[in-house]
Parts: sequence; structure tokens; C-alpha cells
Amino acid sequence: MKSLRVNGPRLWQSLAELARIGATPKGGVKRLTLTDVDRQGRDQFVAWARAAGLTICVDAIGNIFCRRAGIDAGAAPVAMGSHLDSQPSGGKYDGAYGVMAGLEVLRSLDDAGIRTRAPLEVVCWTNEEGSRFTPVMMGSGVAAGVFTLEHCLAQRDAEGVLVGDALRAIGYAGDAQAPRLGAYFEAHIEQGPVLEAERTTIGVVQGALGQRWFDAVITGQDAHAGPTPMESRQDALIGASRLVLEVNRIARSHPDYARGTVGFLQVKPNSRNVVPGEVRLSVEFRNAKDATLLAMVAELKQRARAIEAECRVAIALQEIVYFPPCAFDAALVADVRAAAGA
Amino acid sequence: MKSLRVNGPRLWQSLAELARIGATPKGGVKRLTLTDVDRQGRDQFVAWARAAGLTICVDAIGNIFCRRAGIDAGAAPVAMGSHLDSQPSGGKYDGAYGVMAGLEVLRSLDDAGIRTRAPLEVVCWTNEEGSRFTPVMMGSGVAAGVFTLEHCLAQRDAEGVLVGDALRAIGYAGDAQAPRLGAYFEAHIEQGPVLEAERTTIGVVQGALGQRWFDAVITGQDAHAGPTPMESRQDALIGASRLVLEVNRIARSHPDYARGTVGFLQVKPNSRNVVPGEVRLSVEFRNAKDATLLAMVAELKQRARAIEAECRVAIALQEIVYFPPCAFDAALVADVRAAAGA
Repeated sequence: MKSLRVNGPRLWQSLAELARIGATPKGGVKRLTLTDVDRQGRDQFVAWARAAGLTICVDAIGNIFCRRAGIDAGAAPVAMGSHLDSQPSGGKYDGAYGVMAGLEVLRSLDDAGIRTRAPLEVVCWTNEEGSRFTPVMMGSGVAAGVFTLEHCLAQRDAEGVLVGDALRAIGYAGDAQAPRLGAYFEAHIEQGPVLEAERTTIGVVQGALGQRWFDAVITGQDAHAGPTPMESRQDALIGASRLVLEVNRIARSHPDYARGTVGFLQVKPNSRNVVPGEVRLSVEFRNAKDATLLAMVAELKQRARAIEAECRVAIALQEIVYFPPCAFDAALVADVRAAAGA
Repeated sequence: MKSLRVNGPRLWQSLAELARIGATPKGGVKRLTLTDVDRQGRDQFVAWARAAGLTICVDAIGNIFCRRAGIDAGAAPVAMGSHLDSQPSGGKYDGAYGVMAGLEVLRSLDDAGIRTRAPLEVVCWTNEEGSRFTPVMMGSGVAAGVFTLEHCLAQRDAEGVLVGDALRAIGYAGDAQAPRLGAYFEAHIEQGPVLEAERTTIGVVQGALGQRWFDAVITGQDAHAGPTPMESRQDALIGASRLVLEVNRIARSHPDYARGTVGFLQVKPNSRNVVPGEVRLSVEFRNAKDATLLAMVAELKQRARAIEAECRVAIALQEIVYFPPCAFDAALVADVRAAAGA
């Protein structure tokens, strides 16, 4: 089995056909979750799954599970998948690649006449992107017990449409129970620059970095830029600039895949001739280890106190999001690594 | 004449009456130039000037000159004045104080029965604020020959209304020639914190700082905040923050009333999870000496080149405004100082 390879041209063609559904002029796709275009994508996927002889189930949040039976019907299924919905300006491969790669594995096993011990599942999760309905990763979140079904069904989009109504409208409000998975794999295009920079085609994801997000408000005092001497100023943008550089410095000085980003910054009153009285900005720290992540935050808070004193401003830091680091199963990671090397 | 004092209560009452025209709920005024409220303010001023026996002239840009004859009709007039228009959220005293103080000087000379050698003028300049029509300081600029009359009459406000039409609509498109002034004094409230901090009531302005304004564009590369390692980033906000701090440091390290301000800053795409690819910001330097001002700019350009290399971004600096430093007439400054001390 080590040398089994999928049918690359078939996978490529499936991706091209799928990309026609919701195609955008720039070559990407727009398939917002639970719209009619999402339905068309799902219908196409289900048609292919049927043609591959798979058994299709849809659960109450609209996740689609397509099963290929195993020799041991009682074994926990091994699943592969991703999502078919997209951001408003989504790419062709994000999500779709994981779903179609899963289906292609099952097609190729059929071609090779191989039966597996455990059942296999290809999964399409509902509303992974979260651009129409929050929370993001809704379908997988319900399946994993992170969100309740009731909470998610009661969410509304900007036009006031309920998730539950949208699911019924496109015919994907199912009644199946989500299967309890033994293992889950997801193929995904890289969203960063590392593989390209290293001229490598496959990377093995070992986990998700932990994240701590903050909203910061730096408060100084508006003043005329002309008549106000430098030493009388309480310039919120000076304090903010110092904070931005600290976020960057802290991330660069920590191990364990540390990231530190200020992506959002807003100046008030934002007028050329006025010393800024207030700046709002976002701070995002990521790290593979919880202890390092906490150390980064502690250092930021310490530096913020120093900046307050040195720049004569007040800095309020409010934590708004915490995702703990998540290491993927070591045995599965090793399996992916071995398969990628083959 | 040294001990002549104006009638303070009368000046105070005139200011209070004027502040009713265009009064705002917060205690300020909104008298946008060449609106009907500006007309009401002008009409009130002209009525007081008539009552004081002054001869009123209006020039083609709407400046109002109110003359008290001197003994020597051929002497160049000595003028005092300011403006009656305001910003959308203007204060009671900005502008109005200079006009009414000038009128009060003439009233007080009358009360004391004093005739002066040179004629005296109280002046109300048109569109000093520039909040409805650009350029700012329009009326005094035309009188001083800095702007042409034709250019200013052809400017439009946000609704497309022409300066020339607005002048006619409020009845202040005159045909008088602006008098050639021998001297000009302007009393004005301080817009900075220095007098208050020093518990002083009068300051003598010795000139205007020179100004050099720039638009800066810092260009990096958008990237996902999660998967993009710190060392791969070209973060435009890091470059911008460094530039903001340099503007501040340069101003603090130079003599001659140096100012350095970044009042405006805009981040793209300004999303919490995206490393910023572009930042636009304003840079404003001020100094009393042209040579120091140029040295500050040279230092900024040198630091910008260093930041480009260290932060892997491009920094474009475009000069958009240059006002040379302007020293007021030393004899007139000395006269004000002597009078203020008396």
C-alpha cells in the first residue's frame, strides 16, 4: 500500500469543475455558506460521492459525511475532508482541495481494489469560513461539541436570515448523527510563504499555535501641532508606535513559533495638524506553548506600563480571545510525514 | 497715551453679543464663511463700526475695512483686526476677539478725544479658517498678493457653490481697493498651552514658524498573521512606527522652536489578522529658522533610508507644503511688548 498513488489528473479535473460553481472574474470563487451557490457545490460533491458508491449522511448542522465501508464495521472511521464554502473573494483550492483530495483517495482505493479495516469518511463541514454566519468553523465545532447545535441554528446573517432556515432552504438540514471519528486528516494549501520560500511541496502540520488577542486603547491629549511644544505633548500615536514595536520585538525574541502582529490601528482625530489624542489598535500573539504565550503577554503588559510613564499616555489592554495551543496526534502526524516522504 | 486703557466691559459685552450669532449648544459658535450666519456677524460688526463713526469699505474678496481718519490723510493706515468666520465647532473668541479688540481701541480713542497722525483701520478678513473654501487665509492672502482674486473667486465648496456667488449672496462682494497698510496688529487667544502653564496672560508673537509638510507612503507586503514567520514579514506598520518615532525624536533634538508631528496615519488593509502591507501618514515639521528646518528634513530622509533597509519596506516621501519662517517687524513687536508691560 505504500506505493499507492491517487489519480492526479482526475483530482485536478474535479477541482476545475468545482471551481466553475461560483467562479469570480479574477479566477477565484465566491461560495458563501448556505447560499444557492453553496448548494450547487454540495450537490456536485454528493453526486460524485454517490457515483463512487459512498453512503451519504447529513447531520443537523448540514455537515456531509460520505462513507466507504470497512472490513470491521465496528471500527471508528478514518475521515478526510475540509469545506466547500468560501470567503467573498475566495480561492479555488482553499477548502475544496481537502474535500476533493479525500474523495480522490476513496476513488483510488476502489481503482486499486483495496479494502480497509476501518470505514473511511469524506467530510464536508458547514460554514468553515464564518464570513456569513458566526461562529467560524461552525459545522466542525458542533460535531466536536465546542458549540451547541441550538446556538448555531439560531445565528443570523446580516440580512437577518437564520442558519436553520438557510439550511432548510438549500436542502441540507439533515437528521443523521455525526459519526464519532477515529482519526481526521485535512489536506490544505499553505496560507503562508514558508513552503514556497523553501521550494518544498508538502508540509506536515503538527498543531495549531495558541492565540491571545487584545484590544488596546492609548489615550493622550489632542493638541494643535503648531503652538504645542514637544515637551508639553501627550501624543497617543507616539505611545502606540512604541507599543507596535514592542509587540514585534517580543515575538522576535521568543521561541516556539512566536508571532506578534498589530494588524489594525486607528488614530483620532486623524488630522494632519492635530497631535493625536487617542489610538486604538489590535494586538495578536501566537505561540506553540501556553507558557511562552503567557510570558509574551506578561512582557507586553510590563512594557505598556513603561510606555505610559515615558510618553505620558494611558494604555488600556483588554484580552478578547484566547485559543490554547493544540498539538495534533503525534502518531497521525508521523503517518502523514511517512506518507509524504514515500 | 501710555496709560490709555480700553473699556473692558464694553469689549466683553460686544464679544458676548457676537457669540450669540451662530451659537452652538456647547458654548462655541459655528459661523462658516460666507453663510447667512457669517453675514449676520458681519452686519453686526458693520453696524457697530457705523455707530463709531468709521468709514466702511468692502473689497472684491469681501474683506471689510473700517477707517478712522488721521491728522495726516496721506499716512499709511495702522490696522488691527482678525476674522469673524469660524470652524464648524469654533470657539467664541477665536477671530472675533481680534476684530472686536480693534474696534474697541477706536471706540476708546474716541472716548478719550484722541486723534492719531495716521488713519486707523479695523479689518475683518474673509475666510480665514478655510473650512468651507480653500485656500485658508483667503482674504488676507488676496490683500497681500499671495493669491490672485480670480483664483479665489473661482473656488467651490463641497456643494459646488462658488466663492464669488456666495459673496454676492450675502451682500459682501465689494468694489473697494484694499488699502495699503503701514502696520498691522492682531490680538488673538493662544491656541497652545504655554501661557496657561506659565500663568501669564499676554504673549508677544515674534513671528510664524516655517513649515514643511510631507505625505509618506510606506509599502510592505500583506501577509497572514498566523502562518507568516516574523523573519519573512515586510510589515508596513513596523516601518511606519519607526518613522513616527523618528519625526518626534528629530523635533526634540533641534533648537529654534522645532515641532514634528504625525497627526494622520492610515493602515491597509487594517485587519486584525493581516500583517499591514501599506501605511499612509503625514509628516509636519516646523522651525523658526529655515536652515534648521532643512536640516530636520535631511535627517528624516536619511532615517527613512535606514528604516527601508532594516524593515524591508519602501518609504516614499512627497513634500506637499512649504511655508518659510516669517519674523514679524521687530519695531512693532517691541511696541507690543512695551504696551503689554505698561
